[in-house]
Amino acid sequence: MLYFKNDYSEGAHPLVLEHLLKTNLEKLDGYGEDTYSASAKEKIRNAINCPGADIYFIGGGTQTNQVVIATMLSRHEGVIAATTGHIACHEAGAIEYTSHKVITVPQYDGKIKAEDVQTLCENFYADDSHDHMVFPGMVYISHPTEYGTLYTKAELAELSAVCRRYSLPLFLDGARLGYALASNTDLTLSDIASLCDVFYIGGTKCGALCGEAVVFTKNNCPKHFVTLIKQHGALMAKGRVLGVQFDALFTNNLYLELSKNAIETALLLKDAFAEKGYRFFINSPTNQIFIILENEHKKKIEEKVAISFWEKYDDNHSVVRFATSWATSKEDVQKLIELL
Amino acid sequence: MLYFKNDYSEGAHPLVLEHLLKTNLEKLDGYGEDTYSASAKEKIRNAINCPGADIYFIGGGTQTNQVVIATMLSRHEGVIAATTGHIACHEAGAIEYTSHKVITVPQYDGKIKAEDVQTLCENFYADDSHDHMVFPGMVYISHPTEYGTLYTKAELAELSAVCRRYSLPLFLDGARLGYALASNTDLTLSDIASLCDVFYIGGTKCGALCGEAVVFTKNNCPKHFVTLIKQHGALMAKGRVLGVQFDALFTNNLYLELSKNAIETALLLKDAFAEKGYRFFINSPTNQIFIILENEHKKKIEEKVAISFWEKYDDNHSVVRFATSWATSKEDVQKLIELL
Amino acid sequence: MLYFKNDYSEGAHPLVLEHLLKTNLEKLDGYGEDTYSASAKEKIRNAINCPGADIYFIGGGTQTNQVVIATMLSRHEGVIAATTGHIACHEAGAIEYTSHKVITVPQYDGKIKAEDVQTLCENFYADDSHDHMVFPGMVYISHPTEYGTLYTKAELAELSAVCRRYSLPLFLDGARLGYALASNTDLTLSDIASLCDVFYIGGTKCGALCGEAVVFTKNNCPKHFVTLIKQHGALMAKGRVLGVQFDALFTNNLYLELSKNAIETALLLKDAFAEKGYRFFINSPTNQIFIILENEHKKKIEEKVAISFWEKYDDNHSVVRFATSWATSKEDVQKLIELL
Amino acid sequence: MLYFKNDYSEGAHPLVLEHLLKTNLEKLDGYGEDTYSASAKEKIRNAINCPGADIYFIGGGTQTNQVVIATMLSRHEGVIAATTGHIACHEAGAIEYTSHKVITVPQYDGKIKAEDVQTLCENFYADDSHDHMVFPGMVYISHPTEYGTLYTKAELAELSAVCRRYSLPLFLDGARLGYALASNTDLTLSDIASLCDVFYIGGTKCGALCGEAVVFTKNNCPKHFVTLIKQHGALMAKGRVLGVQFDALFTNNLYLELSKNAIETALLLKDAFAEKGYRFFINSPTNQIFIILENEHKKKIEEKVAISFWEKYDDNHSVVRFATSWATSKEDVQKLIELL
Repeated sequence: MLYFKNDYSEGAHPLVLEHLLKTNLEKLDGYGEDTYSASAKEKIRNAINCPGADIYFIGGGTQTNQVVIATMLSRHEGVIAATTGHIACHEAGAIEYTSHKVITVPQYDGKIKAEDVQTLCENFYADDSHDHMVFPGMVYISHPTEYGTLYTKAELAELSAVCRRYSLPLFLDGARLGYALASNTDLTLSDIASLCDVFYIGGTKCGALCGEAVVFTKNNCPKHFVTLIKQHGALMAKGRVLGVQFDALFTNNLYLELSKNAIETALLLKDAFAEKGYRFFINSPTNQIFIILENEHKKKIEEKVAISFWEKYDDNHSVVRFATSWATSKEDVQKLIELL
Repeated sequence: MLYFKNDYSEGAHPLVLEHLLKTNLEKLDGYGEDTYSASAKEKIRNAINCPGADIYFIGGGTQTNQVVIATMLSRHEGVIAATTGHIACHEAGAIEYTSHKVITVPQYDGKIKAEDVQTLCENFYADDSHDHMVFPGMVYISHPTEYGTLYTKAELAELSAVCRRYSLPLFLDGARLGYALASNTDLTLSDIASLCDVFYIGGTKCGALCGEAVVFTKNNCPKHFVTLIKQHGALMAKGRVLGVQFDALFTNNLYLELSKNAIETALLLKDAFAEKGYRFFINSPTNQIFIILENEHKKKIEEKVAISFWEKYDDNHSVVRFATSWATSKEDVQKLIELL
Repeated sequence: MLYFKNDYSEGAHPLVLEHLLKTNLEKLDGYGEDTYSASAKEKIRNAINCPGADIYFIGGGTQTNQVVIATMLSRHEGVIAATTGHIACHEAGAIEYTSHKVITVPQYDGKIKAEDVQTLCENFYADDSHDHMVFPGMVYISHPTEYGTLYTKAELAELSAVCRRYSLPLFLDGARLGYALASNTDLTLSDIASLCDVFYIGGTKCGALCGEAVVFTKNNCPKHFVTLIKQHGALMAKGRVLGVQFDALFTNNLYLELSKNAIETALLLKDAFAEKGYRFFINSPTNQIFIILENEHKKKIEEKVAISFWEKYDDNHSVVRFATSWATSKEDVQKLIELL
Repeated sequence: MLYFKNDYSEGAHPLVLEHLLKTNLEKLDGYGEDTYSASAKEKIRNAINCPGADIYFIGGGTQTNQVVIATMLSRHEGVIAATTGHIACHEAGAIEYTSHKVITVPQYDGKIKAEDVQTLCENFYADDSHDHMVFPGMVYISHPTEYGTLYTKAELAELSAVCRRYSLPLFLDGARLGYALASNTDLTLSDIASLCDVFYIGGTKCGALCGEAVVFTKNNCPKHFVTLIKQHGALMAKGRVLGVQFDALFTNNLYLELSKNAIETALLLKDAFAEKGYRFFINSPTNQIFIILENEHKKKIEEKVAISFWEKYDDNHSVVRFATSWATSKEDVQKLIELL
């Protein structure tokens, strides 16, 4: 059985595991106050070109979105996201669980537009009764998006400008950030640090066993953040587990290097799909490929390949996802291509 | 200055006040365990033709929506509402504050369609990853809607049928229920009790100083409901204040009778608008009239009449609302018509 | 049947009702933006000698405690209260419902001591792991307390000083504040406004149908407070109902005047209890009298008088409460004394 | 520098790491649906002698306590715990954050007594106004407790009996369960599974990098538990990380075997403390030793040994904790003893 179902089907990159192994018996302080966490943070500050960044490691993506959004919003505020945004759809209401509304704006290939945020804010403040409504308090995007698409530098700059106009922190969910950076894009890690107020660098899907690095770039980390992380149940006793992994990921550019494999294998696969006349649901430049399959065809493929059902296209067709990762082998890609 | 801004601009119907006055010095038990609350509940059970109904009085509409929805939903569930539903837009996130998502479906003149709820549920359960999403747990409608429109008996029956299919309690927000019942409609109070699982009979906007009567019709009142009301801060020490008012409202059919005035005056006004060539934004059969006004025209009217801005129509026009109530005098209507 | 069960067994003081009646048909803006609310606030500002106070009216006591505490605390903070404090015991977890811990300190006749708050804070900050604990964020007291006792001016000043030392807002729950002010006490309304950061003037138990006036005295009202009240379901559409009542209560010193009756009748009753050799559970100077009764004796009294069971004293005795109010007649007191 | 500060200062037991390493590149399903998670659950079911147990893996202890308590309590309920219970003191209000009160009962060497729970419940239901209070809904204990003490089988059976009388699920926090089982105790894993309704087997402090195994023993797992875990941000995409570790821990009795080292080294240390005349704060039979030190003495020890300050004893003395773990070497213990 070939496996293209998702990008979290393997463990960690060998160098990450090796670092865990090598440091395993060192006695270190808990709760993220160990030396490897400190070292990892310093390496990330360098990589993002933001010496004053406040950085915290949290175990998973939903957790990170929940903690960051709940602690940065004021009580009367909600978070703006695409109708297809991960927090709007696929996190089991984790944001609402913390008492905040997800305010949706239209999506365009998974992305949101600065002008829609601008219009939403204009209309909100123009409405006499806005005191009876949830205030826009933050903007959430993911990069890559749910559909694997990418913001250009210009698009992110525009969004950032609107956010500043309305004092809305701009939060970028980088669960798959490595795959964005390894793609053909004009948006660098430094740009992201400069244009966003807070973002996270995804480990779980990009080479780690688990863990995400939250980065506050504007001296804007919520006060008592460690206590707030704990209150959400998200403070790991052995914070070293995350620190050591990110220390490895940001040594010798490993984070970017391992991500390249996902893009290279995805491009091979995209070319094959195109050549064989498959219909793309969306043109994603990263590691997720969305294909429209006739339902019988889908069943046949699924006999030999594990893939993800994404959504119903029409009564006879489905959208499915083929995902590659840092661990996808070219042999498996070749085998898959032969099956198509 | 004429006043057509809303339907909560006066105090209580004189007979309601009189009942408060007459019973004022009687010593009664607190927290809704007084004799007038008991009497009011019995009268409501008769009026809705549902002898087994569980009835509670709560101080206001937002409070009622919040308590009912939060206590009937399970933790993994959200409430389905129209995109224009009151709880989706104009309650400052009171539902999300209790940790639940408002899941929106399209609105048609403020109403939702059974088929959209059906489709939403079908798609939800067909999605393999629905365990990562908020489960549909309840359906919320208002009658009249935010736009003053009404469900027909057939429409409500259809909605009710879908709800039962998916075990979703159907909750009807009747903040202005009196004005629905007094309109030209085939949907009676008994029908509502029979088709809905829970609904409330609005007092605040229909003759009371404050207060709404929540009715559970299917032996489905959440356990320990008094404790839960208290936990939401909504249990009045002097429950008599609500009980006495509803006792008056359900004596000699007062609730329906007083509501008729709102409809009669609204119809006079609608005819005048039509005759004078005004543009209706929506055809509302109840006590709220939505008119599209050129902005300069709006300003001129506002010099002499208090009205509500509803929403921007286009760069030169606004939607405004003229509301009547049980207290609107025909003299004021006549004066307004002359001004138009 | 005589009725000494509580101080919320009647409706409103006749002058309060009269004001509601007289203003009933005036057309006023909603949500507390009416002229009577404005007038009432101005009168309260004068009465408390705090011209810059921010004042809001909320429907009931639990609601008020919930809204004030939830909106003044930061997320990592809890509220300090006596082990017997109302919010710690008798509000069905309404504070925890908003995600905040009630941190208890010992009670002495229902009151807390400045030194205990001081010690709690000292120990908290001395504990290396306090980042893993709930931060003390506010101090809650009630005056009169749950046991009808009163803080002296010196005691409140001491408490206030500790609160300032640790930047803890001092919140005084004045559900029965009128009865405190009408007692033999050196603590005035101006003192309270000066020593506390926020307090509320109870209407429900002191002459109103419902309603409490929250007073922020230090230019410290939470931002967007109207939106936050609404989010808690506590914003009344007909805010006039509360404004008109407080306007009456603060006209011609009515609030204090009507409260005197409760104290006078309570003193008559206390003297009688003392003379007849009853055992006092606590020496309360206000309108609640706590007596230890042998259980058979209690039953006999309850045949003719409605009273409150307070707590078990021992296997054969109970603590019961006799409460007077603004509405208690001297005739009833006389009848009760004859029964003792 | 010797390190006796806590029992989470190293990584994972070598056999656990080895299993992670060996399975690292296998492609497995996410969210705990992998084969190693299934295998680990089966092994645990055997070890606890409870074939029908529902088992879930969660990343950390606070998280686990939060998810289990929040999902098993009804909205009107709180959780009973010792005044010194971890959830009452040292989890930054994580339980209150989910809207539930922690109801405290007295502690005796960190343990609670069945009779106190019984009395609390009796008094609660005997109180006429208990509808205005938080209902007792669950009992939380930890084993070992915060003070390293252990329940006997008889004590746990008594507690369990009271819980059943009042329909309160009994929840045992086993963050250090391995160290309890490896001690001199008559309480087995099977006993725990039989007497408790839910408990967790701690991995983080007993040999894993991270992870706890929650066990529902009475066919009482909350419905839609996966969705609820996700809603709390606690569902790991790579569930395998936890599954693989517990699979190793429950192979060849590793969990118990590795725990023995902590007890053996602790006993060596306890004997040395006793022999040298140190004062024990409490007589703990597990891996945590609590010693009362004169403050100057404490400082001197801390120059060479990392230990935990526990609490102030008096103005001149402190309580400190020396902790051992599966990873503590006898050499380090010997070196420490020489320093004492």
